[in-house]
Amino acid sequence: MADTHAFLEALKQRAPWVDELLLAPELLHRVQPPHLQRLVAAYLERGGKRLRPAVLLLCCGAVGGDEKHALPAAAALELFHTWTLMHDDIIDHDALRRGGPSGHALGAQLAAADIGLTGPAAEHYGVSLAMLAGDVQHGLCVNLFLNCTNPNPALVMQLAADLELNVLCDLVEGETIDIQLADRPIEAVDLDETIRMMYLKTGALYEFAGKAGAMLGLNTTDEKHPHVDALRRFCASCGIAFQLQDDILGVVGTQEKLGKPVGSDIIEGKRTPVLLEAYARADQAQRTELLRVVGNPEATDQQVRRTIATIVELGAVQAVQAMARERIEEAHTALAAVPSSRYTRWLAGWAHYMIERDF
Amino acid sequence: MADTHAFLEALKQRAPWVDELLLAPELLHRVQPPHLQRLVAAYLERGGKRLRPAVLLLCCGAVGGDEKHALPAAAALELFHTWTLMHDDIIDHDALRRGGPSGHALGAQLAAADIGLTGPAAEHYGVSLAMLAGDVQHGLCVNLFLNCTNPNPALVMQLAADLELNVLCDLVEGETIDIQLADRPIEAVDLDETIRMMYLKTGALYEFAGKAGAMLGLNTTDEKHPHVDALRRFCASCGIAFQLQDDILGVVGTQEKLGKPVGSDIIEGKRTPVLLEAYARADQAQRTELLRVVGNPEATDQQVRRTIATIVELGAVQAVQAMARERIEEAHTALAAVPSSRYTRWLAGWAHYMIERDF
Repeated sequence: MADTHAFLEALKQRAPWVDELLLAPELLHRVQPPHLQRLVAAYLERGGKRLRPAVLLLCCGAVGGDEKHALPAAAALELFHTWTLMHDDIIDHDALRRGGPSGHALGAQLAAADIGLTGPAAEHYGVSLAMLAGDVQHGLCVNLFLNCTNPNPALVMQLAADLELNVLCDLVEGETIDIQLADRPIEAVDLDETIRMMYLKTGALYEFAGKAGAMLGLNTTDEKHPHVDALRRFCASCGIAFQLQDDILGVVGTQEKLGKPVGSDIIEGKRTPVLLEAYARADQAQRTELLRVVGNPEATDQQVRRTIATIVELGAVQAVQAMARERIEEAHTALAAVPSSRYTRWLAGWAHYMIERDF
Repeated sequence: MADTHAFLEALKQRAPWVDELLLAPELLHRVQPPHLQRLVAAYLERGGKRLRPAVLLLCCGAVGGDEKHALPAAAALELFHTWTLMHDDIIDHDALRRGGPSGHALGAQLAAADIGLTGPAAEHYGVSLAMLAGDVQHGLCVNLFLNCTNPNPALVMQLAADLELNVLCDLVEGETIDIQLADRPIEAVDLDETIRMMYLKTGALYEFAGKAGAMLGLNTTDEKHPHVDALRRFCASCGIAFQLQDDILGVVGTQEKLGKPVGSDIIEGKRTPVLLEAYARADQAQRTELLRVVGNPEATDQQVRRTIATIVELGAVQAVQAMARERIEEAHTALAAVPSSRYTRWLAGWAHYMIERDF
């Protein structure tokens, strides 16, 4: 779709603006000793689409603001996202991120290569350094945000304080619920809980990107300004749709595009909307089959493929696709309150992209 | 000494002012779900002397400032200290903190009691939640700092940005060096490295408390103002003396006052100034004895007692006491540049207290 193409072009144009701040040598060189610097730089240097910064900048432009003044806040959001990834990867025991070792895995490699540590000692070194690297990225995020050149320091302070209290609490609450749900029986998990978790883990930060971009663009401290409110709601809906699409692709995507095995969410026992929808629609025999595979690291490839086929046959993927489409419709309705421009067209393209993408 | 007594009174007076912000129910209730809230509140509710906030407030008063305006920044420093403790306790495998279970130990207890997890699963739940709880405290710290009622928002932003870049990078660098030194042979560790580590891990945050208190009190963004510079240097020296005294008490203190076994630094193999001084002065036989016990979790109580006796006989404790006194003399010299008042007398009392305390 043309809208999506134009959005992707706008995204590509903005990435280097963001990277100039994110990868500024004077910032990264401040981080010592070298092992810690390597971990802090790793995820940032491996790319990533810089989606959150772009959304903030486009929302700033959509209300007639100067994107230039919002650039540090935009780059700060990428750092915010990055420190949460670094800590989440420890929690989820993830060994890979953006085509390279995760922070703690890289730390363990450095411990082995440079200090001669092995086994649990190397692993603990890796976890320790990845935790500290996330802490440094969190600090760099706040520092960058507060360097916003927007002429109103009270506005910048208000937004940074909001990010560090409300967005952070939401995000960490979502992560904690994610941890806790994995130990609850499937039938005791409510679909609404998983959707709320998606809002907390992903939607809240996108919502903030929309709100902050609009408030910086309008140079207003008024969160209730109609364009601020519209863009905030637009972004929150797109953020949840993004997560729903992730859930779908985890079942019907391809390993090549996902960068991880299809069905890994199933093996990890993640309580996702697709799984809950399938379980709700399944008969007793199908439920037994699901329970044998979900959260079972010993499940064979064949069992996983069969389970995926069952989930699809039950219509669970279509049901979640419908939920994602509904979110995107809500998003478009919200966006309609903002005067149309190339910025709103790009944002509409982003909304399409959230449910069209296959990776 | 009278000065110390007056300082301790001033400290006691300020703790409730700080706690009113730190333990504000509306802040803690924002943190969900309940397990995470428990961890975030645990260290704060168990007391602590609120030393860093008091130092910031006294430095504010020493330059004629109104302590009231600096209170959120003061409370924020306690939160900053607290999140670093939460993450350090994970790194150091510490099970106790302030007379209760450490964050990750408490998390593991909650996992067992409420979710039925055991063994490594409960431990991983504890570590995950303690990491996230530290992240939340970090966010609350920034939020509180930015709520400073000082009339100059540009000053508050400058200080918060400094805390989050420079102080945080210093502190995390010190923690990383601490991790790395434990795997280096004693003879390959330099005394100056351990002193620098003490500055990074402890001195830098006290230095910031002095600088921030003075700048808020003077309402100036000028870091070079002579009173700012004097109080900054005063606090940095006291912070290092504090750590040197900690090192001394780890060897010649009493378990009752320390709250942990005497000699535990020796068993953990920490590269401390007392150990390095002792090793430098030891003959070959004594070095062999030291190497048998340092970093050896199997060492018997008798071996540890003998090693402590050797360390004392070699004059290592006296040598480090002399270093600490030197830092306190430097501190007094710096403080002399600030017009004397009850505030400077309290600060002088703090300096004495740093090397007089036996716990």
